[in-house]
Amino acid sequence: MAFGWIDEQAELRRRAGLVRTLRPRPAESPLLDLASNDYLGLARHPEVTEGAAAAARTWGGGATGSRLVTGTTELHGELERELADFCGFEAALVFSSGYAANLAAVTALAPHGSLIVSDAGNHASLIDGCRLARGTTQVVAHADPDAVRKALGTHDGPAVAVSDTVFSVDGDAAPLAALAAACREHGAGLVVDDAHGLGVLGAGGRGAPAAAGLAGADDVVVTVTLSKSLGSQGGAVLGPARVVDHLVNAARTFIFDTGLAPAAAGAALAALRLLRREPQRAARARAVADELYTRLTAAGLEAVRPDAAVVSVRAPSPEKAVRWAADCRAAGLAVGCFRPPSVPDGVSRLRLTARADLSGAELERAVRVIDETRP
Amino acid sequence: MAFGWIDEQAELRRRAGLVRTLRPRPAESPLLDLASNDYLGLARHPEVTEGAAAAARTWGGGATGSRLVTGTTELHGELERELADFCGFEAALVFSSGYAANLAAVTALAPHGSLIVSDAGNHASLIDGCRLARGTTQVVAHADPDAVRKALGTHDGPAVAVSDTVFSVDGDAAPLAALAAACREHGAGLVVDDAHGLGVLGAGGRGAPAAAGLAGADDVVVTVTLSKSLGSQGGAVLGPARVVDHLVNAARTFIFDTGLAPAAAGAALAALRLLRREPQRAARARAVADELYTRLTAAGLEAVRPDAAVVSVRAPSPEKAVRWAADCRAAGLAVGCFRPPSVPDGVSRLRLTARADLSGAELERAVRVIDETRP
Ligand SMILES: Cc1ncc(COP(=O)(O)O)c(C=O)c1O
Ligand SMILES: Cc1ncc(COP(=O)(O)O)c(C=O)c1O
Repeated sequence: MAFGWIDEQAELRRRAGLVRTLRPRPAESPLLDLASNDYLGLARHPEVTEGAAAAARTWGGGATGSRLVTGTTELHGELERELADFCGFEAALVFSSGYAANLAAVTALAPHGSLIVSDAGNHASLIDGCRLARGTTQVVAHADPDAVRKALGTHDGPAVAVSDTVFSVDGDAAPLAALAAACREHGAGLVVDDAHGLGVLGAGGRGAPAAAGLAGADDVVVTVTLSKSLGSQGGAVLGPARVVDHLVNAARTFIFDTGLAPAAAGAALAALRLLRREPQRAARARAVADELYTRLTAAGLEAVRPDAAVVSVRAPSPEKAVRWAADCRAAGLAVGCFRPPSVPDGVSRLRLTARADLSGAELERAVRVIDETRP
Repeated sequence: MAFGWIDEQAELRRRAGLVRTLRPRPAESPLLDLASNDYLGLARHPEVTEGAAAAARTWGGGATGSRLVTGTTELHGELERELADFCGFEAALVFSSGYAANLAAVTALAPHGSLIVSDAGNHASLIDGCRLARGTTQVVAHADPDAVRKALGTHDGPAVAVSDTVFSVDGDAAPLAALAAACREHGAGLVVDDAHGLGVLGAGGRGAPAAAGLAGADDVVVTVTLSKSLGSQGGAVLGPARVVDHLVNAARTFIFDTGLAPAAAGAALAALRLLRREPQRAARARAVADELYTRLTAAGLEAVRPDAAVVSVRAPSPEKAVRWAADCRAAGLAVGCFRPPSVPDGVSRLRLTARADLSGAELERAVRVIDETRP
């Protein structure tokens, strides 16, 4: 029977304790949220939701077509200019998601005959970009500029190194400056995904590339998402204008996808303006993450020192991680739970996100719950 | 220099007259729109824009995380239930875009060792799904059930046939019933993309699979987009509950992507409810397309008889197609212009979309402009 093999896979998942189910949440959740990627606490900020509402009213519920046909509004142009300006790049191009932005950047910048050097810990969307690209991919050890240098040395012709700036699972940062140096030695481009850096790292949240002195470099291309610090949906590619022009002409997830909904563009733009006005939100997210880490380790829990706003805590097994997260939830705390196949190393963990608007009392409560429910 | 090869490609594009540029549109365009995919004229309907605005206010600017973590709101659940019910399928799963829904459906339903039989005219997102999937892809002649049957006959093990229901470039329909029969002979699944069928074909716009008697079949999976007839952004996969459960557990563009923004879910849900209440909008879109085709051919233009709401008119060359579209625009009419590499057969055309809310006078004016500006 068609799709019969699905049932066997479902049975295997059940036996391995790896079944995922959706849990719709209410608008006003009683849970303390350390699971979302709303790092700056802006998703429900009235200026952001009003930005969404006003944009929908002015521009409509959808963009109505590809960005190349009817899907580019003046609002998209405004968002692109302000994003590029904020992060310090010449130009920006907005996509319907961060996932689509990553597929676009990698596929369009790695033509036939080129080499892609990809960090082993990269996000699924960068990996899918590598798989779709015409170039050849070489996966290198995690956060290892020497491995990147070595891989680039084996190739003649166009090459790019591709990396998350902050890795989504453990929250550790990539060695951006060293990666850029390795790329420059070989005339290669550097494509970095700042999904978890924008709004958190760099002066006023300008992102990891800015913090590493790479903003505006002509051999660096940055992807960001509008769905985390900016509390909306969508993604963008930032870089030299000629790279952005190239994407407009060559990136399939740009050309063959409907433009970002006006409401999402409006929400992201409102969040960006708010962050400009209140730059301390970025530093506050980092400080919360540091405090979270300090409290967790003081309680004897095994956590990874955060380079941004993600704090990862190791769990002994997938089953115990799931149970731990469920026990936290029962005690009023929402935490993320990452387990195979969503983790590159097979190690299950709780994934906690620091939000700029968490109070000291909330942090204390969160750590108490995590500690009391530990397996 | 890094990215130096981009300039050469840009130069080639310039010489070939194939440069694409973005043209931001104002909120109130003076142009008559025959270019958008807003088939039912709902993108700016006050109920739809209010649906977006209210959802943003209630749920926030973004979903704040993966659908598996914090990104599933009760609103997402509601939209999924109503979409599944409307189209006649057991379950639905909402994605951040139709593109992401297609990547998910194809990759998750074509495991290692499986065969994918893919129509030569399929949309880029289905093609990218084939490229990403672990199964082997065999591309077959356009709209040819016998070719599908033959390809399926060469394979042992899981197999799917993949097709648009309405092809986006020429607006012709796939022979769905015959495709389903071919699949059934071989125990293969059928995956169809109803991006341009939902809201236009079938009783009250229930889509091409419903029109072909395939709604709810246990060997048929349908993808739709929320960005065309429903005037919003996003996509969905419709099918048996066990297929949807499988996607929740296996589809990378579901697991590793932020959930659809509440405003987009709210707009789509409002549009869906409106369509239920005003089912005649679907028939009206088809009637407008028929009238457009009749008038165009009466004027001696070479158009493809529309099976849904897309009408394609052939142009003699890419340059002349671009010029034709620009002349239409100068005369107050927005039309789509498809040319290489966005067309499978290398033939450039104007692409016109019939909207349910176009008046007879507007149609007459549109055809007059297209005729007067013909190359
Ligand atoms: C590192 C990274 N890149 C890209 C994405 C995809 O962005 P989006 O969810 O906006 O599509 C995510 C998460 O969703 C991510 O964690
Ligand atoms: C046939 C078809 N499938 C899928 C898509 C992608 O849907 P979306 O734009 O909602 O991502 C499109 C157009 O954009 C399309 O024409």
